Amino acid sequence: MSETPALERFYSVIPAGGIGSRLWPLSRANAPKFLHDLTGSGKTLLRGTWDRLGPISGEQRIMVVTGRAHRAAVEEQLPELADHNVVLESEPKDSTAAIGLAAAILEHREPGVIIGSFAADHVISDTRGFRRAVVAAVEAADAGYIATIGITPTEPAIGFGYIHCGASLGLEAAPSAVAVDSFVEKPSLAVAKRYLADGNYLWNGGMFISRADVLLEELGRNEPELLEGLLELAEAWDTERRGATVDRVWPRLKKIAIDYTVAEPAAQAGRLAVIPGDFDWDDVGDFAAIGKLHSGGRKKNLAILGDDPRVLSDASTGVVVSHSGRLITLIGVEDIVVVDTPDALLITTTQNAQRVKSVVDALKLSGRGDVL
Amino acid sequence: MSETPALERFYSVIPAGGIGSRLWPLSRANAPKFLHDLTGSGKTLLRGTWDRLGPISGEQRIMVVTGRAHRAAVEEQLPELADHNVVLESEPKDSTAAIGLAAAILEHREPGVIIGSFAADHVISDTRGFRRAVVAAVEAADAGYIATIGITPTEPAIGFGYIHCGASLGLEAAPSAVAVDSFVEKPSLAVAKRYLADGNYLWNGGMFISRADVLLEELGRNEPELLEGLLELAEAWDTERRGATVDRVWPRLKKIAIDYTVAEPAAQAGRLAVIPGDFDWDDVGDFAAIGKLHSGGRKKNLAILGDDPRVLSDASTGVVVSHSGRLITLIGVEDIVVVDTPDALLITTTQNAQRVKSVVDALKLSGRGDVL
Repeated sequence: MSETPALERFYSVIPAGGIGSRLWPLSRANAPKFLHDLTGSGKTLLRGTWDRLGPISGEQRIMVVTGRAHRAAVEEQLPELADHNVVLESEPKDSTAAIGLAAAILEHREPGVIIGSFAADHVISDTRGFRRAVVAAVEAADAGYIATIGITPTEPAIGFGYIHCGASLGLEAAPSAVAVDSFVEKPSLAVAKRYLADGNYLWNGGMFISRADVLLEELGRNEPELLEGLLELAEAWDTERRGATVDRVWPRLKKIAIDYTVAEPAAQAGRLAVIPGDFDWDDVGDFAAIGKLHSGGRKKNLAILGDDPRVLSDASTGVVVSHSGRLITLIGVEDIVVVDTPDALLITTTQNAQRVKSVVDALKLSGRGDVL
Repeated sequence: MSETPALERFYSVIPAGGIGSRLWPLSRANAPKFLHDLTGSGKTLLRGTWDRLGPISGEQRIMVVTGRAHRAAVEEQLPELADHNVVLESEPKDSTAAIGLAAAILEHREPGVIIGSFAADHVISDTRGFRRAVVAAVEAADAGYIATIGITPTEPAIGFGYIHCGASLGLEAAPSAVAVDSFVEKPSLAVAKRYLADGNYLWNGGMFISRADVLLEELGRNEPELLEGLLELAEAWDTERRGATVDRVWPRLKKIAIDYTVAEPAAQAGRLAVIPGDFDWDDVGDFAAIGKLHSGGRKKNLAILGDDPRVLSDASTGVVVSHSGRLITLIGVEDIVVVDTPDALLITTTQNAQRVKSVVDALKLSGRGDVL
């Protein structure tokens, strides 16, 4: 352990990638989910993430990893973002490359750094509860663990993955930290109910906090070639060799989620700690989630989002997202999802909200990429 | 009875008024129902009506009563329509004024004329069956009756009015003609089922065939002031006094449906005959009717209408009307009604299709007339 207090060595990393296919046609290749205000707060999810992390790591210690196409939009949202904290991907390579490159660059610049990666498009309103969990996770990371934050479930959600908790790690600086027994995929409703009753399951918020060198070491155990590429990039990053190295190395990087390269193997090896978080959290994964966010949990509401929406509703419930300026009239439709944009209209139900992704896949295959 | 065969004295009248509020936002003040192709036949309902009547009365003997605003569109649809057969209303005054004025003008021009009025926005595909019924109705009219055509019901429809049939009239030239016992308003499903089982009920197709003088006499019995106004208009119609007379008389005419001023009183007095018609008929009163027309009666279909519609449907049924050029995606919505126009979007279900009218009324009241 370093002598500098752990929190002073903490760096936030925001991977701002992913389109959010389940939120099509609101979320698009050129207007991904993290650039939308899905909460009605008046700010984008990316800005909300920044505002949550700034007070914890300091604004000068937040790195954003995003696609080249989104650079201007990201910088517009985050004018405080320092140039050296922007990492641009020439093409998407999933979360291992994004977070691993940030870890490698930061470790190269500042050995002993602790990094925490937080998705750009999640919603958390209890910033105090969030901060408490992050601070505990940073302590667990300082003790050598890869830490994650698990959210105490409030309902048997089937749209989230779960973390099965093991025994307490007995860490003095992070007494709530327990071992991760295993990660479990999105369950059926019956299984989710069992998890909730069991009490030893937390929602997987996809947040990872660890010393950068510990993360890279774990990655190297499982994907040595990928680690090698990332270290090569990091070594060249702050030199005039960056461009050429990116052009050569980036296209060959394996495209794989960090869940498989770091989190699950580390859990199996007993190197993963989880901090239970008692704050609210939502990954706003589909339009049903948006509806719920906007109706305060009440089922029989109609949530209306958009630019100056004009909606006339008669005995209807669900979600309307209006980005076309047109008058939208609903009569007697329940749990409906209407997403109205200038070139594409989606109509489904909250129950079918998860199926939007497969339709987007079908659109891709059928050559209708113009509306994606 | 005149010595000229009855059918040679027959004149068709097409009142082309009414917006079709239940078909909003497809049907608009400036694009009413009769100017739409709702059958996918490639022609408007008005043109279909003309093509059905032309072979019966002759194209030179079809009069169209419509609003001033629709003159150009009507003439574009009906290039064969003679100038003297266009009657323009300065403001809508419901069906008594429209049909009564046509009757008065035609009787003034050609005493003894038999007129038949047929809505501009109904759908009939069996033109032979329709013709047979009209010919029989013309004979009943020649015998002094006000005749209507009742359609043999094929299901317990709740969107139509019914005619309760009485005894045979014993007319040699129209043996199928029976007395009208009474008209009944749109029934509940239970009552409609009873009507269907009873066998003595027909759908009210709103067609009236009678000698013009008989119709006017019946009107005079019930609404003498309204008749007086119509006769004054008819007398001036083919003179240079038309404009001044219209300006003076038309605004003061009572606005009332012909059902109340002629049909019901005549039925009570035993002067109304009904010819059972065995042809298909639909007044295409709402989007559920459109869906049914397009799916050949099958319930589990998705009917798609519009200008070059782009629709992607996954496990969805109902009706889509596309007039915006946008890609419309449906996922898991059943019996849905989607009407997509450049400035207004309607989403409802086939079960709620009749409620569209009340929403249009609400739009009027709330000052959103711009989309009506």
